[in-house]
Amino acid sequence: MATPRVKEILSWYAGENPGVLANLARIMNTGKLAGTGRFVILPVDQGFEHGPGRSFSVNPPAYDPRYHFQFAIDAGCSAYAAPLGFLEAGARDFAGEIPLILKLNNRDSLSEEKDPAQAVTGSVEDALRLGCVGIGYTVYPGSAHRLEMYEELRALAAEAKEAGLVVVVWSYPRGGSLSKEGETALDVCAYAAHIAAQLGAHVVKVKLPTAFLEQKAAKEAYEKTGVALATLAERVRHVVEATFAGRRIVIFSGGAKSTDQSVLEEAKAIREGGGFGSIIGRNSFQRPRPAALKLLGQIMDIYAT
Amino acid sequence: MATPRVKEILSWYAGENPGVLANLARIMNTGKLAGTGRFVILPVDQGFEHGPGRSFSVNPPAYDPRYHFQFAIDAGCSAYAAPLGFLEAGARDFAGEIPLILKLNNRDSLSEEKDPAQAVTGSVEDALRLGCVGIGYTVYPGSAHRLEMYEELRALAAEAKEAGLVVVVWSYPRGGSLSKEGETALDVCAYAAHIAAQLGAHVVKVKLPTAFLEQKAAKEAYEKTGVALATLAERVRHVVEATFAGRRIVIFSGGAKSTDQSVLEEAKAIREGGGFGSIIGRNSFQRPRPAALKLLGQIMDIYAT
Amino acid sequence: MATPRVKEILSWYAGENPGVLANLARIMNTGKLAGTGRFVILPVDQGFEHGPGRSFSVNPPAYDPRYHFQFAIDAGCSAYAAPLGFLEAGARDFAGEIPLILKLNNRDSLSEEKDPAQAVTGSVEDALRLGCVGIGYTVYPGSAHRLEMYEELRALAAEAKEAGLVVVVWSYPRGGSLSKEGETALDVCAYAAHIAAQLGAHVVKVKLPTAFLEQKAAKEAYEKTGVALATLAERVRHVVEATFAGRRIVIFSGGAKSTDQSVLEEAKAIREGGGFGSIIGRNSFQRPRPAALKLLGQIMDIYAT
Amino acid sequence: MATPRVKEILSWYAGENPGVLANLARIMNTGKLAGTGRFVILPVDQGFEHGPGRSFSVNPPAYDPRYHFQFAIDAGCSAYAAPLGFLEAGARDFAGEIPLILKLNNRDSLSEEKDPAQAVTGSVEDALRLGCVGIGYTVYPGSAHRLEMYEELRALAAEAKEAGLVVVVWSYPRGGSLSKEGETALDVCAYAAHIAAQLGAHVVKVKLPTAFLEQKAAKEAYEKTGVALATLAERVRHVVEATFAGRRIVIFSGGAKSTDQSVLEEAKAIREGGGFGSIIGRNSFQRPRPAALKLLGQIMDIYAT
Amino acid sequence: MATPRVKEILSWYAGENPGVLANLARIMNTGKLAGTGRFVILPVDQGFEHGPGRSFSVNPPAYDPRYHFQFAIDAGCSAYAAPLGFLEAGARDFAGEIPLILKLNNRDSLSEEKDPAQAVTGSVEDALRLGCVGIGYTVYPGSAHRLEMYEELRALAAEAKEAGLVVVVWSYPRGGSLSKEGETALDVCAYAAHIAAQLGAHVVKVKLPTAFLEQKAAKEAYEKTGVALATLAERVRHVVEATFAGRRIVIFSGGAKSTDQSVLEEAKAIREGGGFGSIIGRNSFQRPRPAALKLLGQIMDIYAT
Repeated sequence: MATPRVKEILSWYAGENPGVLANLARIMNTGKLAGTGRFVILPVDQGFEHGPGRSFSVNPPAYDPRYHFQFAIDAGCSAYAAPLGFLEAGARDFAGEIPLILKLNNRDSLSEEKDPAQAVTGSVEDALRLGCVGIGYTVYPGSAHRLEMYEELRALAAEAKEAGLVVVVWSYPRGGSLSKEGETALDVCAYAAHIAAQLGAHVVKVKLPTAFLEQKAAKEAYEKTGVALATLAERVRHVVEATFAGRRIVIFSGGAKSTDQSVLEEAKAIREGGGFGSIIGRNSFQRPRPAALKLLGQIMDIYAT
Repeated sequence: MATPRVKEILSWYAGENPGVLANLARIMNTGKLAGTGRFVILPVDQGFEHGPGRSFSVNPPAYDPRYHFQFAIDAGCSAYAAPLGFLEAGARDFAGEIPLILKLNNRDSLSEEKDPAQAVTGSVEDALRLGCVGIGYTVYPGSAHRLEMYEELRALAAEAKEAGLVVVVWSYPRGGSLSKEGETALDVCAYAAHIAAQLGAHVVKVKLPTAFLEQKAAKEAYEKTGVALATLAERVRHVVEATFAGRRIVIFSGGAKSTDQSVLEEAKAIREGGGFGSIIGRNSFQRPRPAALKLLGQIMDIYAT
Repeated sequence: MATPRVKEILSWYAGENPGVLANLARIMNTGKLAGTGRFVILPVDQGFEHGPGRSFSVNPPAYDPRYHFQFAIDAGCSAYAAPLGFLEAGARDFAGEIPLILKLNNRDSLSEEKDPAQAVTGSVEDALRLGCVGIGYTVYPGSAHRLEMYEELRALAAEAKEAGLVVVVWSYPRGGSLSKEGETALDVCAYAAHIAAQLGAHVVKVKLPTAFLEQKAAKEAYEKTGVALATLAERVRHVVEATFAGRRIVIFSGGAKSTDQSVLEEAKAIREGGGFGSIIGRNSFQRPRPAALKLLGQIMDIYAT
Repeated sequence: MATPRVKEILSWYAGENPGVLANLARIMNTGKLAGTGRFVILPVDQGFEHGPGRSFSVNPPAYDPRYHFQFAIDAGCSAYAAPLGFLEAGARDFAGEIPLILKLNNRDSLSEEKDPAQAVTGSVEDALRLGCVGIGYTVYPGSAHRLEMYEELRALAAEAKEAGLVVVVWSYPRGGSLSKEGETALDVCAYAAHIAAQLGAHVVKVKLPTAFLEQKAAKEAYEKTGVALATLAERVRHVVEATFAGRRIVIFSGGAKSTDQSVLEEAKAIREGGGFGSIIGRNSFQRPRPAALKLLGQIMDIYAT
Repeated sequence: MATPRVKEILSWYAGENPGVLANLARIMNTGKLAGTGRFVILPVDQGFEHGPGRSFSVNPPAYDPRYHFQFAIDAGCSAYAAPLGFLEAGARDFAGEIPLILKLNNRDSLSEEKDPAQAVTGSVEDALRLGCVGIGYTVYPGSAHRLEMYEELRALAAEAKEAGLVVVVWSYPRGGSLSKEGETALDVCAYAAHIAAQLGAHVVKVKLPTAFLEQKAAKEAYEKTGVALATLAERVRHVVEATFAGRRIVIFSGGAKSTDQSVLEEAKAIREGGGFGSIIGRNSFQRPRPAALKLLGQIMDIYAT
């Protein structure tokens, strides 16, 4: 049943109990990428994070929470991640049809702080009650609130792991300590992924890194040791290497809505760089359903090979 | 017994236990709007929020907590919502006669902060002890304290749901991040309703939105996708759509005391826009009882059709 | 709103919190006897207590748990009482349509002990989760296990009352200390009802008493003071008087399936003797549905006058 | 995706949270019977219950705990159920490959009591830690210890359901109150299945019933109402009807090792009688692996049609 | 580093956390048998079990708890197991010098019951506080108290494993259900070892089995399937196979004091039969120290090859 690649990936998590492995295997054995060890996850927290009109008015059926469950199933995604309300609104109707990840913290963008934080909006009990395979949590390395976020994550992750749940961490550098360009700088992105892994994440989600280097000391080291960073694939490779030499699953965020071609080229670079896949929200639900299904199909074709 | 519309509305809450559904059904099977899936709720927290003299001196019988129980019953309201003290003062005398909602947090207006918060003034145990069908909670998206409020709501809502209680959230954008006009802007209002639903609210209460758009990114999206917002009915429709495509109960606040005509026209717009009803405080208890009963009767006539 | 009689009955429970009163009022405001202060409750625990074939083969649709919810609604019963499994199987579909009482303890009849006991098969949390208005519990005065049962009831009743739930006690004298005839003896029956009330029951369910007197000391007292016991109505009157001078709701069990006429005559005697109503299981579901609906209608007609 | 039949079966469990439904769906979407709503479950607790030599010496590879995981996977079973030790010995290696059910209580046969009980040998935490979809528990209706067993089951089931786990109950009449023949009597078997369902079991496992009737009152009722019991299919049909009119999953135990032909005829009768499938232990692992795989394949062919 | 054999043995415990594996590895990397995957453990609970005079007067230095620590170290044992008092009396002085196993239950022989039990005399907290690598626990399959013992072991083992401690179970058939000869019968011994493994034991300690077969059903199965049992080595092989096909560590008790030659021949048979080693109490401390050291050296020489 489990492919050699799935078995190999599971072997990296030998510190966890069999329940965590079973749920990680469920994600890896679902959808069009089943068995490949690659992932395309649908996340829909933009209603909370960016506001509903800004997120869904371009494709109004996406206002309906059931739309995303059905889309994730039909597109052959590996899992579907969302906040409490969206999952509660469909978990019974779609019970057992797609692995669910309950996003345990969220923030809205009605306020903009220099040093952002998030609110805990769900619990491990909620995740079990709703039949989820894992929890999701965002940290903001670079924010003045990062240490509290790390501590909160640690507590929630410990509880989740005892219950056999997978821990997915969105690691998004942000805050007063970083320049805007620095938020996606290669050194910062690699650092953020590493922190998430050190905090016990099973799956790490980061943004695609640019060739910019933010931190002086890092810049010197990178230049001295000749870290390859000219192409996106090289930068992906560096981030993956920085995350326990590739022994943790690192997936990349598609970011804002973009053209099909640029999304597909990113997927190719992720694949070439040894990334494990994509987490694609806006580029899924901000397209009409047929176009979105087609795009995700093409992305999966890239990852499947 | 339950009408098809009531059954349909209950089906949206399939993530909840049967106890929550039973209490939601109790609200929907009460009063003049029983069976219609529409709501007129009487809230009386203005004594706490605005001060007693400012609230009740215009209609002195309303100083008496029993006045509001009896009014809600006689007017055929769906439920009556109030803080701890007001409910404790009448729950025994009116036991079983009107569904009660215990408002679990409150603030006074003796202090005015740029970024308001509220105090938790009751508990789920209180709600059960007083025979309530649900709890109420206010969040202030836009306030610097919003994240703590979201977390507090999450914890209270989880406890309430386990006990089968309905969760009603007053989602009132307010705080230093918003312009005064922005507090009732369409994008902000829709966003506030969406946040409440994501936090697990069963019933969301927001203010009626204006055609103003507060956030730059939202404004661009609304204009690009052509969100209709010229009429109040269109704006209500957008807010309802933004709240899980209408699969969560959204009711609208009547706001400050106004003329009968304007209140009735608002009700017509709410109905036309697919809103689920009104929560009417000041326009109830700041009128003489006969006039208030008449007005609520007229509002219910609008919703009943 | 509440009738004077309902208000009067509620006044007897002034020691309880408003939540208990609200739920008691819900029962009294439901069905064909709404407002009369009289009760016809449908209990269906015979599948557990006597076995499914023996209980339901005579009317096979009654194997289906939904049958009983619908029957209680259609017959206009005051409430429906059943064990955990039967309530779980319909509580969502019939949410809010009929007051539910979760029977918290049960025994089967595959073993017959001289001194019977019951197993706790549900919890107050279950009752809240399923949207019940109350809990049910059986005690066996006369059994060697009665003291443990009283203590268990006390603990569950205390928990239920804190949550605003009504406590219904089945008080069935049984066990090695009693003769078979004594189980329904007038003195024993009155004693059993009194014990339940002393243990804090809001509603007491006993069997109809015979004119037999079991206990020597009681017999002497009854004869000396001339307790009237010749007719069933007189005996009902005595049991009701023994239960806090009629200030606790006492209802009577219909017992094994019987002819329509005898059931109706019992109802008349209960009414004449000041009893509050009947709890009718086998005489409901062991008749074909139309005959059962007709019989319950006739019983309610008796009580309604 | 879920077939209409799977959706229909899930709809019977509307009292449970979505997590329970998701795990039930996982069982129903696994193996050769995926989507049919029929089950073949492999249970291996005979090492504990009957002793290892007596259980496995006839097929020595079966001493190895991994043998049974692999067998269940290769045979296309719906799930694999075993005590703590056996699951701990393979849960990591086979993580996510077959739904696991942790049998939470067990007894050995080194002592034989007239009124047997079992020891709790695992916990809900163990089930989560090992990645199980459900728990298993045995009750012995007819034993003097049955009431304690019902209470223990209730507590474990409540905990399991909160965590989204499926509850499977082995209901085996046994004990001093029953004749040996009575343990598999039709009335007793139907009663045992009904008790398990009332205690909240999602899946009920009973032995195949004979045409014998044990209890006098049941015998009279069966004869009077003409319960059909001549053929095994008729008796299966009665047991299924007795278990909430077929709205709970009832599966039947294969019992001691038997000939292929008799096992296949039993499967045909179970299918014809509306049973949901088989739980086959000794007839699996006491045959050489190829013969066992062939037999289970034939059984599944019967159920799949 | 860990030898391949140690790695292989650790791989059998993949259901446990790394802490358990680390402590198990500590035992396997200690003493003269380090790295071989074989064990000689010194247990000294005879003072409690049989009385001090009966146990130690033959070698008075053994009255001193420190004697046994030093002996286990000097003899090159894998670990030292004793009750609370004995460990408390030496744990500081010998901190870190020898793996310690706290025997968590004990009984004395001042009373003799047909159906023996034990008292819990220590805790997991004690084991951690004293620096132990594991806990020990005795079960008596065959005793009327066995089910309580299994439950107690389950609870203690779960707690111990969470803390990363190894669980060693003494499985000694005894009690009214067994003949005296049956206590060491091959079928019973194999059954006892299997039960301990199912209850989650990491290391199982049983007595050496005779060729007697106690249980009728087992005898029939053994004879039919031709279980080899003529020699002690064959019988050891059967017990090891019965314990998860040799994937659990099974060690054998030396029993009462015996001649050197018979002890050595037993060790040879254990080794030949695939047993993992010996737990030798009386044959250690009831000999003068030099003789005991010599004997243990010889035993270890046998196991080391």
